[in-house]
Amino acid sequence: MGPSRRSAVPSFSVMDVLARAEAMRADGASVLTLCVGEPGGGAPAPVRRAGVAALAGDVGYTQTRGLPALREAIAGHYARWYDAVVDPERLLVTTGASGAVLAAVLAAFDAGARVALPSPGYPAYRNVLTALGCEVVDVHAGPLERFALTLSGLQSAHAQRRLDGVVLASPSNPTGTITTDLAEILAWCEAEGVRCLSDEIYHGIIYGGVRVSTAAADPVAPTIGSFSKYWGMTGWRLGWLVMPADLADAAADIAGNLALCAPVPAQHAALAAFEPESYAECDARVAALAGSREHLLGRVAELGFTRVAPVDGAFYVWADISSSGLDSPDYCDRLLAETGVALAPGTDFDTRDGGDWVRLSFSPGIDVVSQACDRIADWSERRRATR
Amino acid sequence: MGPSRRSAVPSFSVMDVLARAEAMRADGASVLTLCVGEPGGGAPAPVRRAGVAALAGDVGYTQTRGLPALREAIAGHYARWYDAVVDPERLLVTTGASGAVLAAVLAAFDAGARVALPSPGYPAYRNVLTALGCEVVDVHAGPLERFALTLSGLQSAHAQRRLDGVVLASPSNPTGTITTDLAEILAWCEAEGVRCLSDEIYHGIIYGGVRVSTAAADPVAPTIGSFSKYWGMTGWRLGWLVMPADLADAAADIAGNLALCAPVPAQHAALAAFEPESYAECDARVAALAGSREHLLGRVAELGFTRVAPVDGAFYVWADISSSGLDSPDYCDRLLAETGVALAPGTDFDTRDGGDWVRLSFSPGIDVVSQACDRIADWSERRRATR
Repeated sequence: MGPSRRSAVPSFSVMDVLARAEAMRADGASVLTLCVGEPGGGAPAPVRRAGVAALAGDVGYTQTRGLPALREAIAGHYARWYDAVVDPERLLVTTGASGAVLAAVLAAFDAGARVALPSPGYPAYRNVLTALGCEVVDVHAGPLERFALTLSGLQSAHAQRRLDGVVLASPSNPTGTITTDLAEILAWCEAEGVRCLSDEIYHGIIYGGVRVSTAAADPVAPTIGSFSKYWGMTGWRLGWLVMPADLADAAADIAGNLALCAPVPAQHAALAAFEPESYAECDARVAALAGSREHLLGRVAELGFTRVAPVDGAFYVWADISSSGLDSPDYCDRLLAETGVALAPGTDFDTRDGGDWVRLSFSPGIDVVSQACDRIADWSERRRATR
Repeated sequence: MGPSRRSAVPSFSVMDVLARAEAMRADGASVLTLCVGEPGGGAPAPVRRAGVAALAGDVGYTQTRGLPALREAIAGHYARWYDAVVDPERLLVTTGASGAVLAAVLAAFDAGARVALPSPGYPAYRNVLTALGCEVVDVHAGPLERFALTLSGLQSAHAQRRLDGVVLASPSNPTGTITTDLAEILAWCEAEGVRCLSDEIYHGIIYGGVRVSTAAADPVAPTIGSFSKYWGMTGWRLGWLVMPADLADAAADIAGNLALCAPVPAQHAALAAFEPESYAECDARVAALAGSREHLLGRVAELGFTRVAPVDGAFYVWADISSSGLDSPDYCDRLLAETGVALAPGTDFDTRDGGDWVRLSFSPGIDVVSQACDRIADWSERRRATR
């Protein structure tokens, strides 16, 4: 029998931070939560209306792959944003990006597969891969690598011992950076027989640059999309997976057994996500996020951060707090207790260097972000004065 | 590296039947679909109303374990139906029963675990367990075993080679039978250290007898519940898991990584599932199902079925078609082509003896069921006459 799956899934410091923040708020404290990966505002109005309409109709199971009209609409979205042709037959509508990750990992990797993950990175990848019997290989992506997976980092991991796969997230959580050598990585993976799984759930939330999707390449890397971030539909639990032809049936069969189908009210509602009114509403939110980002980046020195990762996309700032003399869990504990500002400790995202880093989410909006900056700046100033 | 996960998940004959049935209907044929495990009618009215109200509010992530109010309400349901005390802290709200199965299997069984399944049984169990690296041990449950898992069947499998677990579904899909020696099985499992995972998704749809839940025992067997069947909320994808204290945190951590949280509109809507008006609406449907069941069981001989399993609950009749001289995939093919009646071949549910059996669902209602019976009786009569 293999190692215990239960021990493979740790709890996260950020959950402790969040629980304490909620307790403080319940006690009447003024708490500013910059520690969660959730955009504000919820679903755009046309999606909410379509959801209400759907509840009056048939909410029975759909095909496992999802409503044909929704798969057509998602394919249309790839044409619109990336000028890419995606065959709806390769699309699997899933229960959030989470459902896509599960189907993709099970379809693409057998137990024992060695799968590279950039570090810092999204911790659920490590935990899901480990729980499913894969071996996780850390590929460090620090300041020298622009906090993103690089081809050379991947090549040296592969040279040490053959990789079976890699999970690439661009823009990345927690760093917000975009992988620049995407085409080179995809070409190398194909040449070496390393399966590249591509997480694009933050697509649509970028601050400049052109849109590129791995789903546009052929043969396609399994590519994960989501309605949670750009469309703000987190709680609806809806995402999708674009699969290469050789895995499409396997992924659908696995999803059929593991999930039957994605939530049906959300599927009907999401049809309206591709209306011009919805895109306009979401684009306006991205513009607001860009304002919060500017504000935060303009105050980095004042906040005591010696370095931050390039915020190409998403709504995170990955900040070096080592000059505080505290490691990140301690930094986050004290900051919360003394100022009411909740941040995510870097140790959740990077087990090697995360003690020097924290993740700030600027999704709560400019007012909360600027108040939080005031408190952090003040607190850092006081700490410097008393050292 | 282990065996390929892709090959572990077969496609099902019933999916072919369904696809052909849909094609025939699209061609204008009169098709009667008795092959799907879905109740009619959808969610009760209070649930739909609560769902609409929820879409106007916050549809962000909930706690992984689910809305506290919903966990309280589910605990209240155990008190109401079973006079059982269930600690809401042991409840995990999941994405359908599917999400509960995944969390329970990963929390309870490591890779390599030997897990017994009754055969005939729900095929997704076999596929999920296999995809997650468990070894499935078939325990035959035929006419002599009243088509349900028995303690002696379990004991002889265990005697051959030690079991780590067993999945018990009562009422069963595809047979509809209720396990009578539940208490004995639970006691034996506890004594032998065999983890019993209990699927109660058809609870509420029973035709006589008293309600008993494995969640009432202490220490509790991981027990799976669902809003899909009794409450008709299939497409909403909402279920739950009651865990013993030693697995509750592990299951929640796994679910957090694999799914974040269950669909949020459905969670809010489901709060209304426990209102008296909802129970009344659902109970009226069970009464209608009882009428369809009576009709079907009254015509067994006429339909050419030599034996049927006791339909204690659910909405299935598991029928022996061996006197037709056809094996069940062929029987279902011809019946569909020649009469437009779609049934599920038993081979999907029982790889050893399933060729002799078919599953009929009487959930489409008395009109469809009686028409389908007319056609099957007529077809069987014609086949007998020409042999």
